[in-house]
Amino acid sequence: MISWKNLDELKAFEALKAAKRVDLVSVMSGESGARRVAEYRVPMAEGLVYSYAAKAVDGDLLQALKALAEEAQLADKYEQLLNGEVINTGEKRLVLHQLTRGQQAGDVIADGVNKREFYVAQQEKAAAFARKVHAGEILNEAGEKFTTVVQIGIGGSDLGPRAMYLALEQWAKRSGCQKMEARFISNVDPDDAAGVLKGIDAARALFVLVSKSGTTLETLTNESFVKDALGKAGLDSSKHMVAVTSETSPLASSSDYLEAFFMDDYIGGRYSSTSCVGGVILSLAFGPEVFARFLNGAAAADALAKEPDPLKNAAMLDALIGVYERNVLGYPTTAVLPYSQALSRFPAHLQQLDMESNGKSVNRFGEPVNYATGPVIFGEPGTNGQHSFYQLLHQGTDITPLQFVGFRQNQTGMDVNIQGSTSQQKLCANVAAQIMAFACGKKDDNPNKTFAGGRPSSIITGDQLTPETLGALLAHFENKVMFQGFCWNINSFDQEGVQLGKVLAKRVLAHDTDGALKAYSDLLEI
Amino acid sequence: MISWKNLDELKAFEALKAAKRVDLVSVMSGESGARRVAEYRVPMAEGLVYSYAAKAVDGDLLQALKALAEEAQLADKYEQLLNGEVINTGEKRLVLHQLTRGQQAGDVIADGVNKREFYVAQQEKAAAFARKVHAGEILNEAGEKFTTVVQIGIGGSDLGPRAMYLALEQWAKRSGCQKMEARFISNVDPDDAAGVLKGIDAARALFVLVSKSGTTLETLTNESFVKDALGKAGLDSSKHMVAVTSETSPLASSSDYLEAFFMDDYIGGRYSSTSCVGGVILSLAFGPEVFARFLNGAAAADALAKEPDPLKNAAMLDALIGVYERNVLGYPTTAVLPYSQALSRFPAHLQQLDMESNGKSVNRFGEPVNYATGPVIFGEPGTNGQHSFYQLLHQGTDITPLQFVGFRQNQTGMDVNIQGSTSQQKLCANVAAQIMAFACGKKDDNPNKTFAGGRPSSIITGDQLTPETLGALLAHFENKVMFQGFCWNINSFDQEGVQLGKVLAKRVLAHDTDGALKAYSDLLEI
Repeated sequence: MISWKNLDELKAFEALKAAKRVDLVSVMSGESGARRVAEYRVPMAEGLVYSYAAKAVDGDLLQALKALAEEAQLADKYEQLLNGEVINTGEKRLVLHQLTRGQQAGDVIADGVNKREFYVAQQEKAAAFARKVHAGEILNEAGEKFTTVVQIGIGGSDLGPRAMYLALEQWAKRSGCQKMEARFISNVDPDDAAGVLKGIDAARALFVLVSKSGTTLETLTNESFVKDALGKAGLDSSKHMVAVTSETSPLASSSDYLEAFFMDDYIGGRYSSTSCVGGVILSLAFGPEVFARFLNGAAAADALAKEPDPLKNAAMLDALIGVYERNVLGYPTTAVLPYSQALSRFPAHLQQLDMESNGKSVNRFGEPVNYATGPVIFGEPGTNGQHSFYQLLHQGTDITPLQFVGFRQNQTGMDVNIQGSTSQQKLCANVAAQIMAFACGKKDDNPNKTFAGGRPSSIITGDQLTPETLGALLAHFENKVMFQGFCWNINSFDQEGVQLGKVLAKRVLAHDTDGALKAYSDLLEI
Repeated sequence: MISWKNLDELKAFEALKAAKRVDLVSVMSGESGARRVAEYRVPMAEGLVYSYAAKAVDGDLLQALKALAEEAQLADKYEQLLNGEVINTGEKRLVLHQLTRGQQAGDVIADGVNKREFYVAQQEKAAAFARKVHAGEILNEAGEKFTTVVQIGIGGSDLGPRAMYLALEQWAKRSGCQKMEARFISNVDPDDAAGVLKGIDAARALFVLVSKSGTTLETLTNESFVKDALGKAGLDSSKHMVAVTSETSPLASSSDYLEAFFMDDYIGGRYSSTSCVGGVILSLAFGPEVFARFLNGAAAADALAKEPDPLKNAAMLDALIGVYERNVLGYPTTAVLPYSQALSRFPAHLQQLDMESNGKSVNRFGEPVNYATGPVIFGEPGTNGQHSFYQLLHQGTDITPLQFVGFRQNQTGMDVNIQGSTSQQKLCANVAAQIMAFACGKKDDNPNKTFAGGRPSSIITGDQLTPETLGALLAHFENKVMFQGFCWNINSFDQEGVQLGKVLAKRVLAHDTDGALKAYSDLLEI
C-alpha cells in the first residue's frame, strides 16, 4: 500500500537529521580515503560507475538513507509510475517517458491504446523517414539530398535534443555515422532564427517543428519566421518541414508538413529526449541505429533503478544524498561539472530537468511544504569551469555540492602527448585532483591560500561517451530527479510556474495592461 | 583617508539590517508600481537605463544604502584604484583594466612605464595587424587571405572574448563589418580542439594564443594540438599564429608567432576583454573601429561609476542592492537573464567575473570574514529560460534575485509579424511580464497555481545591443563586482582558489599520489 507523506512526516527523516555528521576532510585523508573510493561506488548501466566516496556520508548515514528510501517507498512508487498510475497529480496524467525506451513493467493501456506500441510505432515511423532521407528517397524540390536538420522548439523540445546532439556529434563523425548536421532555433528573439538561417543552406535543410500542444508561442513564431525566409528564397516550406506533436494538435494533420510524428501528454517536455522529440532529429543526424542504442542505454538505467536497495541503485542513492545535502546540511545549490566538452550543454539540460521538476512549494496534494525542495542547478564543462567559477566553489562562504562526470577515453581519438601525458590524461588528472582539493582542502600559513575543504562531490565515470552511456547518463538523472520528487512528496511532472508569465505577456501584446506592467511595456516601447 | 573595514564593522550596515523590509507584492501593485517604474531608474552610459523598481527597496532603504556607500567609501576606493594604488593586496598589484579603455584619473606610472600609453600602443599594434590581415598584406603560405580567427585560451582568455564575439556577430554581419569568422578552443579535452578544427579550413585560419604567463596548461596543450594538426596538413604554424601574453613570458619573443601583443599583471583575466586579450580577436573579426567603439562604451560606464551618489550611479546601486539581498535578506544565488540571443554566453562570462572575483572567505588583509560574500551566478537567455528553470524561480522554496537585460530593437533587422506583433515585441512583452509575475505573483484557489511573488529583479534596458552598449554593459558589471568587493572588504582581483587543483593535477600526472587521490587516478586509469 503506497502512502504519500511529506518528508517531515517520516521517522526516517528525523533519524537522518539526528545522525552524526561526517567530517569529509578527515575521512577522505590517508588510507581511509583510499578505502572509501574502493568501497563507495555503485555500478550503473552500460559500464558507468557512480562513486560517492567524497560525499559526506558514512556507514551510519547510508543506513539512515536506506531507511528513508524504505519509509518513503521509493521503489514502490517508481513501480507504480511504470505501471501507469496517475503520478502527475496536478494534471491528472500518467508519466510514461520510460516506456519510450523499453518496457519495465506490464502493458500500460491508456485512452484505449497500448502506449508502448504507440511509442514504438512512432519511433519506427521516424526511423523509416530518416532512412528515406538518407537514401535520397525524400529530396528537396531541386531533387537534391537534405544535408542539414534544424529543430524548431523551446524548453524540453530544445535543451535535451540539443545537449544529446552535441554529446554525440564528434563521436558520430569519427564513427562514420554522421548523416546530417543539426542546428537548433528556440528563442523568440528573431536574431536566433536569423543567425541560424544565415549559417546554413536552407535549400538543403529539413526543419523539425516540435510542439506537443501545437500552440507554443515561440515555436509557432519561429516556424513563421522560417517559412517566410524559405518563401523569399523561392522554396516550398511544405517540402522542408516535419512536425512532432500530439495527435490532437492543430499541426497533426496539416498539409504544411511532409510528415507528422506523435507524442502525447504522458511525456513531459523535459523527459522527451527519448521520444520523437529527440528521435526525429537524432535519427536524421546520426541514423536510427544510433538513436536505438541511445534508447538501450536509457532502458538499462531504468531497469537498474527498480532495485529497492539504494546502495545498489545509483539513481536512488544520488537522490537520497541530495536530499540529505538539501534538507539536513542546508545547501541551496548543486553544480554539474562534466569533464567532457561533448557534454557542454548537458548542464543546461539538467538545469531544466531538475529545476522545472522539483522547484515546487506545494506537495502532490497541493498543500504547502515546510522544507526546501529542488536546489538551483548550474554548471559548465571542466576544465573550463576551473578557470572560472571554481574559485567560489573552493573558497566562497557557501558550500555547493558537486556532480562530476568523467570518461577514460575521448571521442575523436585525436590527441597529443605533451610533457609526458595526453590531453585526455590531463583532463582526467584534473577531475581527480579537483575532487580531492574540494574534499580535503589544504592548510596554509597564509589564510588567503587556505582551502577549508569539506566540499562534497560525487563522480560518474565510464570508458567513453557513446550512445549507450549517454542514454544511461540521461536516464540516471531523470530517475534521480523522480526519486527526489518522491522524497519531497511533490509532483515532479507538471510546471504550473510557467503559466503566469504567459498570461501577462499576452496582456502586454494586447495592450491590456495598467500599473507597473504598463509602465514596463512603455519602457520597452512595446 | 581610506579606511578598509569589514562590512559588519560598519554602522551603516547595522542600520541597513534594522531598516524596515519592503513588501514587493504591495508596492509593485497598482499605481504605486507604475510610480516606482517611473522613478526607480538610473541612466547608464550609452543610453542604457538601470531600472530597479522591482527590487525590494524604498526611500528609507535607499537612504540606508546611500549611507553604506558613504561609510564604505566606495567612490573613494574606486578613485584609488584608478589612481594606481595597490588594490590587489593578495598579489600586491595595481588594478588597471579600466585604463585599457580610457583615462579616468591621472597618469599611472608603474615599473617605470606610463600604463595608459602602454595599453594604447598594444591596441594600436593589434589594429595595425588586423588591418594588414584584412587588406591581404598578411597572407597564408599559399598567398590567400585568412578567413577565420581562432582564439586558444581558457577562463578569462576565453569566456569574455567569446561572449563579446557572439554578442556582436549578428550585428556585425548586418552592418557589413564582419571581417572574419571567429572560433574558440579552451578545454584541455582534446575533443574541443578536434571539433573546432574539423569545422574550419585550417589553411586559412589565424590562431591567437592567449596566456598571460605563457604557462597555462590547457592553452599550451591546445597550442601543441593545433601545431600538430597544422603540421600534418603541411602548414607552417608560425605563419598561422600570434600570441597575446606578458612581455616577460616565454611566448613574448618566440619565432613561433607572426606577432606578439602584450598585456601585464595589472589586468586580471576576467577583466581582460578590453585589453589585447579581447582586442586582437575582436579587431580581426569585426575591424579595429568596432573594437574602439566597444572600448568607448566601457569608458563611458567607467566615468559614470565615479559618481559618489549611488542613486545616480547604476553600478554602485546595483552592487549595494546585491549586498542587501545577500547579507540582509540572505539570498544565496543571482540569475542573469538577458532577453537577447546575442547575449547567450554573457551569463557564463558574468559567472566567472562575479564568482571568481568575490567568492572569497577572507578579507583583503587575509582575515576570515563572518558574513556571506559573492553569490552563485547562473543564467540563460530569455525566453529560453522561461521554458526551463523559471519554474523554480517562480514557485521554488528559495528566492533568487534576478538581473534582466532587454533591448527595444533586435540586431539583424529581420523579423516577422504574427498575430499582430513582431518577434521582438513578443520578446520584450515576455520580459515585462516576467518582472511583474515575479514581483507580484498571483493568488489562486488552487495552491499549485498560486504564485507567492516577492521575487526581486532589476532590468537594464537599451535601444539595441551595439559595440557601445555592449561595452557599457560589460563595464557596468565589472564595476558592480568591484563595488561589492569593496563592501565585503575582500580582494576581488586575485584567485588563490584555483591553485590547489593545479598542484594536485600535476601530482597525478607525475604519478606522485597516494590515498584517495591515487584511488581516483586508478579509477580513471590515468
